[in-house]
Amino acid sequence: MPEAGTMNAPQGGGHPDATKRGRRSRHSRRGATKPAHRPTIRTVNYRTLRNPFTPAKVFSDDRVEAIHQAALDVLETQGMKILLPEARAHFRAAGARVDDDSQMVRIGRDIVEEAVSTAPRSIRTHAGSRHRDQVIEPGALHIQTGAGSPNVTDLSRGRRPGTYADFIELVKLNQSFDVFHMLTPMVEPQDLPPHLRHYDVTVLQLTVSDKLPFVFCRGTAQVEDCFEMIRLARGLDDPGFRRQPCCHSIINTNSPRQLDIPMAQGLIDFARWGQLMIVTPFCLMGAMAPVTIAGALTLSHAEALSAIALSQLTRPGAPVCYGAFVSNVDMKSGAPAFGTPEQVKANIGAGQLARRLGLPWRCSTGAAGAVNDAQAANETQMGAWGAVLAGATILIHGAGWIEGGLTFSYEKLITDLEVMQTFAELCTETPSDDASLALDALTEVDPGGHFFGAAHTIERYESAFYEPVVADWSNFGTWAERGGLDANQRANRIWKQVLEDFEPPNVDSTRLGEAIAFAERRKSEGGAPPPG
Amino acid sequence: MPEAGTMNAPQGGGHPDATKRGRRSRHSRRGATKPAHRPTIRTVNYRTLRNPFTPAKVFSDDRVEAIHQAALDVLETQGMKILLPEARAHFRAAGARVDDDSQMVRIGRDIVEEAVSTAPRSIRTHAGSRHRDQVIEPGALHIQTGAGSPNVTDLSRGRRPGTYADFIELVKLNQSFDVFHMLTPMVEPQDLPPHLRHYDVTVLQLTVSDKLPFVFCRGTAQVEDCFEMIRLARGLDDPGFRRQPCCHSIINTNSPRQLDIPMAQGLIDFARWGQLMIVTPFCLMGAMAPVTIAGALTLSHAEALSAIALSQLTRPGAPVCYGAFVSNVDMKSGAPAFGTPEQVKANIGAGQLARRLGLPWRCSTGAAGAVNDAQAANETQMGAWGAVLAGATILIHGAGWIEGGLTFSYEKLITDLEVMQTFAELCTETPSDDASLALDALTEVDPGGHFFGAAHTIERYESAFYEPVVADWSNFGTWAERGGLDANQRANRIWKQVLEDFEPPNVDSTRLGEAIAFAERRKSEGGAPPPG
Repeated sequence: MPEAGTMNAPQGGGHPDATKRGRRSRHSRRGATKPAHRPTIRTVNYRTLRNPFTPAKVFSDDRVEAIHQAALDVLETQGMKILLPEARAHFRAAGARVDDDSQMVRIGRDIVEEAVSTAPRSIRTHAGSRHRDQVIEPGALHIQTGAGSPNVTDLSRGRRPGTYADFIELVKLNQSFDVFHMLTPMVEPQDLPPHLRHYDVTVLQLTVSDKLPFVFCRGTAQVEDCFEMIRLARGLDDPGFRRQPCCHSIINTNSPRQLDIPMAQGLIDFARWGQLMIVTPFCLMGAMAPVTIAGALTLSHAEALSAIALSQLTRPGAPVCYGAFVSNVDMKSGAPAFGTPEQVKANIGAGQLARRLGLPWRCSTGAAGAVNDAQAANETQMGAWGAVLAGATILIHGAGWIEGGLTFSYEKLITDLEVMQTFAELCTETPSDDASLALDALTEVDPGGHFFGAAHTIERYESAFYEPVVADWSNFGTWAERGGLDANQRANRIWKQVLEDFEPPNVDSTRLGEAIAFAERRKSEGGAPPPG
Repeated sequence: MPEAGTMNAPQGGGHPDATKRGRRSRHSRRGATKPAHRPTIRTVNYRTLRNPFTPAKVFSDDRVEAIHQAALDVLETQGMKILLPEARAHFRAAGARVDDDSQMVRIGRDIVEEAVSTAPRSIRTHAGSRHRDQVIEPGALHIQTGAGSPNVTDLSRGRRPGTYADFIELVKLNQSFDVFHMLTPMVEPQDLPPHLRHYDVTVLQLTVSDKLPFVFCRGTAQVEDCFEMIRLARGLDDPGFRRQPCCHSIINTNSPRQLDIPMAQGLIDFARWGQLMIVTPFCLMGAMAPVTIAGALTLSHAEALSAIALSQLTRPGAPVCYGAFVSNVDMKSGAPAFGTPEQVKANIGAGQLARRLGLPWRCSTGAAGAVNDAQAANETQMGAWGAVLAGATILIHGAGWIEGGLTFSYEKLITDLEVMQTFAELCTETPSDDASLALDALTEVDPGGHFFGAAHTIERYESAFYEPVVADWSNFGTWAERGGLDANQRANRIWKQVLEDFEPPNVDSTRLGEAIAFAERRKSEGGAPPPG
């Protein structure tokens, strides 16, 4: 019964460290019941992945250079509209041509290239447990769930605006699977007032998870509140907090060629405090970006460079990732599309530009489908392959995203998880030593026979293969007898079971208490309204 | 309304030649209604694909060589059990050590390597229309639907044993989409008696399709009947028929290390007549093959080499493709699994072995899922990526296969089609000329504006993006208003519409009449029972 076995087994990849926290992977748990002479149980570390694929190309190297130079031309001659005076001041100080009336900032290529040269090539994050720390650098692969959805949906409760209760559940689900390497703001808890939301959201991330938390850039007051909660929960002094990123954020430019106040402020705040900022223009070809892949990438690249420049002008060496999120729209309706061939190509092209810079970078998949069906599955996997083949350092929206991000699906989180764990498996080495060539077994088994009982099989069968979370491999008759549940229905049972079994990580309760006390005090003082 | 537009548009990729046959692609049809000054409509040739990806690796080159040498060792020392005396005679004549009592044939590596050296590196097929001809060689990508299912299923009629009526519909559906490059035996028409089945099945393929037909190896009598029908329908004399493959077949060895009578006979018959044989051991790791990827590939490679050798010993230069179909089983139940990380890795490893030989080759995806849900979608796409990244020349089971091939799903044919067309789109060049960098548009559009009205967009919008067949990109409200159909339900409407709109290709009715007359005569003579 594959599905029954996996319903008790939320943790896809067991890591030796897991037992130290009182949590054991499925395989470790199973292993504990076996006699000592049984073979080693499969353990796969999903927490540290290196991308095994040679990065793909859609452009020749000279055209990558042409796009890079075109983007520099755009910054130098057209410029960016930057709404935050402080940001314009940074650019002015660096020698950019700034017009405060029009808010236009024209940034010379020398300024941009100098800024890119100070951006770090490798960034070590500091999470709640050392085994959750990530080294974000080209060649690594970090996977994130979907992010930023206003709504949630699940088969039991239907589609609805996101609440804090949903947020809690989704952070717990994220925490339960090693292949999701950081937390994301999976859903917007709309029932919390905007001036108080960030307290609960941050405390929750620090309470039920030891992964790197996410902080929204909604004004310096909120950002610094969040930093303080995280600093307290991690038991760091100010210099310690600034030394390594303890949280991350994403800023989207307002394509084309505009950077709004909270985003620019966030870039500055994160750079000042040494926290990880992932810069991601969201460029839909034909809508807020040119209709061509090369044109959209020219724009996206220019905007990303301007944001990286602001980060580095604020503080050289500040941890910042390049990012791209380029897909197309339906030219008949304007509806955004994801997992399209154009998104795959744009992902690959973005990877070429990221390698031109030498920076770690984030890439994106997504799904436009309205429900967790074959369309949405195919879209997310297709875009994810584009990102993986592009050599993305961070893949975002890898699980749960439907409706172009307007809704986060609990069931899709689980069905996409299977795809992400498959990617993680593809990052592992494939044994090819003499023993794995199985010449003994090939001698032992007669023509037309089978290998079930071969010594070579017995030694390895428990650890040979990836064991699925949601896939049901039973035949039609057995599947029908067990209720004929489709992947969606099975996923529904799985996430419920994972939540039921959930155990929070070991968290220092004294430090967490300090973070909570800080949050409560700030709440009682009136909180921090977001700008605008 | 994306889905409405595509329901009238069965043909995914328009080819200029299509209009010559009185059939026009969706885009051509639309284009005909536009004023002459409108920009060029998108036309993409899905009929000739080159794989754009650098082949991936799971083994170092020296371990590929080690597997190749191990496979040669297996053939030389363990040997193959070959049940057909004529096949053993071919091997004996070539110097292999043959034991007729045990039916074991031990084949020296020199014999194998000599045979591989005569196998063609490039094979041009001769279909019913010249634009359907394929050049099968390393670097090309040919996509096939699922094949060999005893059952069919669709949302309207449910799951049932396959009939000739289903076969007719599925061949028409296959014919309607350029991205499926050849016909496959999608379903077994179980209502036709086995000694007469091949007549109707072959005539049908020649009547409603101009793609390369498929012939099962079920004894020389049936095979030669099929060859004769195809020869007559193509208007060829015997030498002309032998000159280029006019049909294809697949033989699966009986892993491990056994070749049964109809398969060996088929290899000989196809080689004699110069028809395309695709050699594919079906090796499920842990069941009929070793539990390790490297071990299963050692076995699969050995078996494929022995079959290629038989083909070449029959007639040097006979058109034969290497093939691999290696996946794993659930070690708890023995159930076959597809789209697993192990299958992806095995595909990639098989590609390394195929490149070691330098031969065109077939690779496989598949789905174990019982219905066309997120699981089955993810499985087929995952395995397909494995095959594409492996550099497969022919990808089989790309669409429609569920339940590990026990059932062919009409709806999955359509939802997988979208994935296969996306692969086809990825084979196209990505423009990166100066105009596509869109610097004019980037100047024209103000910061925070949009590109919908930019001249650069207007010039290109009708042809810029792939238009989906089944994906619905509308927002949730619109999607719900239109009935809230999931991908499966939309696919159900689509295949019905495609069948309703189906127009057969131009077929020479005189020649076809000759093939039919031959079939009728042979039927009246009692047909040709399959062996055993």
